[in-house]
Amino acid sequence: MEMNNKPIGVFDSGIGGLTVAREIMEQLPQESIVYFGDTARVPYGSKSRETVTRFAFEGLNFLLSQDVKMVVVACNTVSATCLEELKKYSPVPVLGVIEPGARAAASGTYTGTVGVIGTERTIKSQAYVKAIHDINRDINIYSKACPLFVPLVEEGWLDNEAAFYTARTYLTPLKKEGIDTLVLACTHYPLLKPTLQAVMGENVRLVDSAYETAKEVSRMLKVMKLERYEAAPSVYRYFVSDDPTKFIEVGERFLQRPIDPINVIDPEVPCQGLKSKGRKSE
Amino acid sequence: MEMNNKPIGVFDSGIGGLTVAREIMEQLPQESIVYFGDTARVPYGSKSRETVTRFAFEGLNFLLSQDVKMVVVACNTVSATCLEELKKYSPVPVLGVIEPGARAAASGTYTGTVGVIGTERTIKSQAYVKAIHDINRDINIYSKACPLFVPLVEEGWLDNEAAFYTARTYLTPLKKEGIDTLVLACTHYPLLKPTLQAVMGENVRLVDSAYETAKEVSRMLKVMKLERYEAAPSVYRYFVSDDPTKFIEVGERFLQRPIDPINVIDPEVPCQGLKSKGRKSE
Repeated sequence: MEMNNKPIGVFDSGIGGLTVAREIMEQLPQESIVYFGDTARVPYGSKSRETVTRFAFEGLNFLLSQDVKMVVVACNTVSATCLEELKKYSPVPVLGVIEPGARAAASGTYTGTVGVIGTERTIKSQAYVKAIHDINRDINIYSKACPLFVPLVEEGWLDNEAAFYTARTYLTPLKKEGIDTLVLACTHYPLLKPTLQAVMGENVRLVDSAYETAKEVSRMLKVMKLERYEAAPSVYRYFVSDDPTKFIEVGERFLQRPIDPINVIDPEVPCQGLKSKGRKSE
Repeated sequence: MEMNNKPIGVFDSGIGGLTVAREIMEQLPQESIVYFGDTARVPYGSKSRETVTRFAFEGLNFLLSQDVKMVVVACNTVSATCLEELKKYSPVPVLGVIEPGARAAASGTYTGTVGVIGTERTIKSQAYVKAIHDINRDINIYSKACPLFVPLVEEGWLDNEAAFYTARTYLTPLKKEGIDTLVLACTHYPLLKPTLQAVMGENVRLVDSAYETAKEVSRMLKVMKLERYEAAPSVYRYFVSDDPTKFIEVGERFLQRPIDPINVIDPEVPCQGLKSKGRKSE
């Protein structure tokens, strides 16, 4: 297949990266996508650097085996942990979610005081702090790990009492610092936007990494002249490492389109045969 | 080593099984323990039957390589998913946490109406329902998956507003059914006992699987004449599959004793060399 018409690979630890896939579908409807969510080993956010790095290389290798023209690491934890190593290793461009989010935050703040929320691993890595300071060293950054947000989103508790209490508890210290911009440094968090906005107040701008990343994908494809031009409609394929039932159920509600075909693969096994679960063929 | 003096193996998906280890330490202080927590792949509770079964066999094989006289599957998800397969395969006795909990519930209920709470996978498996009905078919059982309890416990939010709201939301339907006994079918849940008791009221008895399982271990060792009689003090060793920092931090607070020595192993690799992290030697 000619390079331009190859799909974009999107890698995530689970279902959260679908926020990034959805933004690519909306902003670049002509592009095809291969999505891999490592649902057997999700979440990555509380695991060690070594373990996350190993899982990430397995995910990258799987997407490369699917002949993609670019890999988007939709997982903040992976982007924060080992993006440079993945870039060095990969024969195709690799794009993370941190630089786009950091750029939007740095250019959007008036007061020069920015908040960053994410998983334990993302926050501990200080990756957003480094990325924002690479752009503007004078910005004050206040970070906060919010480990309960992902399970709340997965339970569908987006705006009930527990969600508000949790958001208030995590965000009040950031609010007291007077931030005017809050980076949602985890792909699950956009689903909590109304609650987070209500807790932070209307004057704080929420930066959605998924949206910013899709914009960056668009820019990169243009610069590299890698845009798809085939007349045939774009194709979306999905791969997971665990039984796809829950992924399909939550994901279809989320993407507002069928998740089909979907296949189950074992990322620990290189060049494996696929156990097909394409529903059309069942 | 003579069979009696070999350690008891305790297997869990992560840190939760330490509630079972602690009960064994308290009830059977003369017994040695080898604990394995699969912290790189935790949690199991939301994953598929196939994936959980594969992880469980890898954990069992690791403990067998440590020359244990018995394996306690402290993980409710594993006990609910594939205990019979593990029992058939293992050359030493394998004990799960479900039968002991089910027996305590069946013998403790006056009204014949029992509640069971656990992870999605444990509840979906209906393992407690089957185990309780095997003892007494007339007991009415109401089950409820409580996926937010584990992240709450891991965040240390045991009795704040979010914990109470979550407990009320999950437990109110069970309370309305008039249960007089509530089985805590997840090793993390005993830490929430005061909150759960407050929500359910003093007349509902909470069945703690960890406590009941340790009692069953004691009974089994007596029956099989496998009690340790060596004069030397018992030895506790710990193995995890991810960086042990967080496990040590949370686990020591939890067990009230040092978690040492601890080693990191990769359960996907059979008969591997151990990457030693024993702190004494560092």
